[in-house]
Amino acid sequence: MGLRFRPVDSTFYDLFTESAQHLVTGAGLLAEMLSDTSDREDVARRMREAEHAADETTHAIVRRVNSTFVTPFDREDIYSLASGLDDVMDMMDEVVDQILLYEVKDLPTDLSAQVEVIQRCAEVTAAAMPQLQSMQSLEEYWIEINRLENAGDKNHRRTLANLFSGEYKAMEVLKLKDIVESLEGAIDAFEKVANTVEQIAVKES
Amino acid sequence: MGLRFRPVDSTFYDLFTESAQHLVTGAGLLAEMLSDTSDREDVARRMREAEHAADETTHAIVRRVNSTFVTPFDREDIYSLASGLDDVMDMMDEVVDQILLYEVKDLPTDLSAQVEVIQRCAEVTAAAMPQLQSMQSLEEYWIEINRLENAGDKNHRRTLANLFSGEYKAMEVLKLKDIVESLEGAIDAFEKVANTVEQIAVKES
Amino acid sequence: MGLRFRPVDSTFYDLFTESAQHLVTGAGLLAEMLSDTSDREDVARRMREAEHAADETTHAIVRRVNSTFVTPFDREDIYSLASGLDDVMDMMDEVVDQILLYEVKDLPTDLSAQVEVIQRCAEVTAAAMPQLQSMQSLEEYWIEINRLENAGDKNHRRTLANLFSGEYKAMEVLKLKDIVESLEGAIDAFEKVANTVEQIAVKES
Repeated sequence: MGLRFRPVDSTFYDLFTESAQHLVTGAGLLAEMLSDTSDREDVARRMREAEHAADETTHAIVRRVNSTFVTPFDREDIYSLASGLDDVMDMMDEVVDQILLYEVKDLPTDLSAQVEVIQRCAEVTAAAMPQLQSMQSLEEYWIEINRLENAGDKNHRRTLANLFSGEYKAMEVLKLKDIVESLEGAIDAFEKVANTVEQIAVKES
Repeated sequence: MGLRFRPVDSTFYDLFTESAQHLVTGAGLLAEMLSDTSDREDVARRMREAEHAADETTHAIVRRVNSTFVTPFDREDIYSLASGLDDVMDMMDEVVDQILLYEVKDLPTDLSAQVEVIQRCAEVTAAAMPQLQSMQSLEEYWIEINRLENAGDKNHRRTLANLFSGEYKAMEVLKLKDIVESLEGAIDAFEKVANTVEQIAVKES
Repeated sequence: MGLRFRPVDSTFYDLFTESAQHLVTGAGLLAEMLSDTSDREDVARRMREAEHAADETTHAIVRRVNSTFVTPFDREDIYSLASGLDDVMDMMDEVVDQILLYEVKDLPTDLSAQVEVIQRCAEVTAAAMPQLQSMQSLEEYWIEINRLENAGDKNHRRTLANLFSGEYKAMEVLKLKDIVESLEGAIDAFEKVANTVEQIAVKES
């Protein structure tokens, strides 16, 4: 990679990694929430904690950008990446909240496939964050996120077709559609993070 | 505060104050719309007028940014603040519109608590705008908005749980959920304005 | 127009024109989708192709911005315009997708009026793109888009009032409301494109 003319401040990479690890936690809680045997109130409480912890990390990144003279990449890109990761957490938190508030009895099994895509997105993102320092292997990361987003899109469309097949009552569709769309929103939010990383990598190359 | 190195052009502060005062008007109309005895068509007409007046103020700010060489703070922050205030108005206008178009007969009393939060947000925001000039007491403003946003979030969740409790028919839920979400959208839009003000204050400090 | 101090790279204008022409194709497919006699699966397949072609054009614009030293207008404005045009396509694609997935039997005739507005928006936008080079007659374009947006808004409100008039069952409302809102989303996306063009024209004048 040759010389870097900006001094290396590894804190940013650590904070982005921390931020993405909150997403791994969140995705795990989402999977728990879907299980028949889970204590939903308890999972929702832990999700709230994870969301607060993620907020803390986001604020730490913003504070650091504001107080650091030389940043490892453009300030606006750091903001985008930090708020992009935060958006994923908000979407996952929303799903858990909806399942709790709507008191959905039977979640269609389709949803598990979508949560698996989300868990995989979280793992791949968490593994990519430390690589921002060397800018190595990032292309594999965003290619994999695009592949996962395509798989998620297929799940989403199949679930919607199912939901409107006549099997469900309007009230159930009303509840489930919100949940299904928030799940898709989480995957879209992961894709936005990958797009931001791609933009950063293009600028730095 | 010591010396300011930028010449003071107080027009911007006046325009932001004007913009926030339209929100106080809008929030009042929202409260009227919810009352049992209101003439909904008439309230909606006045809301439309208020929304046009707010648009005028937004355009005046944008024109002034484009024709002024030295602005009191960064151009993009002025745009963000102006469009953020405008977004609040659009959300309030949407609520009034939905109540009119959906011909909702009985609005749950829960909604009044949320409209009170919105009215308080509007007042606090209108009081904060003139303080942009001295950059004094702004922290109290955004802390209060955050507190209101938390209260609004609790209202929102209680209303949703209520809506899905089985008391309402699917058709009513369909209508009310839209209204409830637009109300929450208005509060979120106030929070975004407060975040923009915080960012401006951090840069200027 | 006098001297231009930036060398003229006409490729950008060609690419924006190409991008807007994809929208004309998409709007035509939308109209086909609404017809009683159409093969919906086939229209949806062709829409997917048009959407991919539009993506290609968007990427070509982004690649060109990244590899060109002097651009005909600000880099961020080129991004905004490219992604704004792309957003219109995504909204039109979403409508087609919803009609297919939700298996809506009888589409209200109201929707045709809205699709006509969209077709007209697409034509006007495609005609305006080549004019970016000379910056001539652009005002007529954004005035026409605003007029169309107002007409679309009236259609939208009439359709919603209709949808909630009691004639439709909750399940039908649930499906149709999504479609109706995506149609409005497409028109809003055209308006955003026009706003971006207006901003560019103001800067260049």
